[in-house]
Amino acid sequence: MALDGPALDTLFRQARTHYGWTGVAVTDDELRRVFDLARMGPTSANSSPARFLFLRTTEAKQRLRPALSAGNVDKTMSAPVVCIVAHDPAFYEELPKLFPHADARSWFAGNEALAAATAFRNGSLQGAYLIMAARAAGLDAGPMSGFDNAKVDPDKLPPRSPRFEFDEACRLL
Amino acid sequence: MALDGPALDTLFRQARTHYGWTGVAVTDDELRRVFDLARMGPTSANSSPARFLFLRTTEAKQRLRPALSAGNVDKTMSAPVVCIVAHDPAFYEELPKLFPHADARSWFAGNEALAAATAFRNGSLQGAYLIMAARAAGLDAGPMSGFDNAKVDPDKLPPRSPRFEFDEACRLL
Repeated sequence: MALDGPALDTLFRQARTHYGWTGVAVTDDELRRVFDLARMGPTSANSSPARFLFLRTTEAKQRLRPALSAGNVDKTMSAPVVCIVAHDPAFYEELPKLFPHADARSWFAGNEALAAATAFRNGSLQGAYLIMAARAAGLDAGPMSGFDNAKVDPDKLPPRSPRFEFDEACRLL
Repeated sequence: MALDGPALDTLFRQARTHYGWTGVAVTDDELRRVFDLARMGPTSANSSPARFLFLRTTEAKQRLRPALSAGNVDKTMSAPVVCIVAHDPAFYEELPKLFPHADARSWFAGNEALAAATAFRNGSLQGAYLIMAARAAGLDAGPMSGFDNAKVDPDKLPPRSPRFEFDEACRLL
């Protein structure tokens, strides 16, 4: 089924990268609905390497502030929710759960270069799915990569987990 | 505007990675419409590093065949169209056209690591936009990364080009 014109406008044609926000709060339920859509997008061997950190509080956003490029501070600090899209380089430890019909773990374990490229590529795909899912849910998005990755503390990452429900792949900060 | 349930099903909830095809041809006009949607997805500094190679003929697909993982041969050879999603590591040469309000070329030129990561990340985002755009246009997709990149000859890449109309970022093979 092809989507109609207004839906294509919402996803692609009229959507814009936003720098200002309406002031309307985004609820945790909305974040869960967006994630429930985004997680359905395809990844290699269902590897689902992305981990999503949703920063809702001023305190959580202030922790991120020193890592931001100057031009990205205002829009990030004023956004109702900021999502850090990370990826787990050891994603393959979850494949016995996520891809049970083959020994997919063995394709990546011990091959660090392949695992890193797969995590990067598929985590990026999932970032795009998240943008599309947010727009599909009627939310504005202002995606950007202007921050210092090294300053985004890995301690923000959730522990590895055998399932990918919202609470397992995401954190609300 | 939030999308309705059937649209969300088409994009995310009911969509599947396909291994077989209906036999209905995909026209060049359809490919152009899909590209026209996908190219609107956001990339860093509008960098748009992805280059799309659409393989339509048996001859073009046969050139790709030796690079495919065994499990991906049948679905790829039988697909009406195969798209190779590449990215241009020298994408920044186009930024004076694509991002004219700042000297964005200088952010990447001479910083090969940043340029490579930006091309990889944003080219991957664009791959996801292409999948979503194909689904939005009513087409089935069977995305996969099971091929030997080194065997996919760089001579298939289109020359650098100052604009990103279909004929400039895509080739129909």
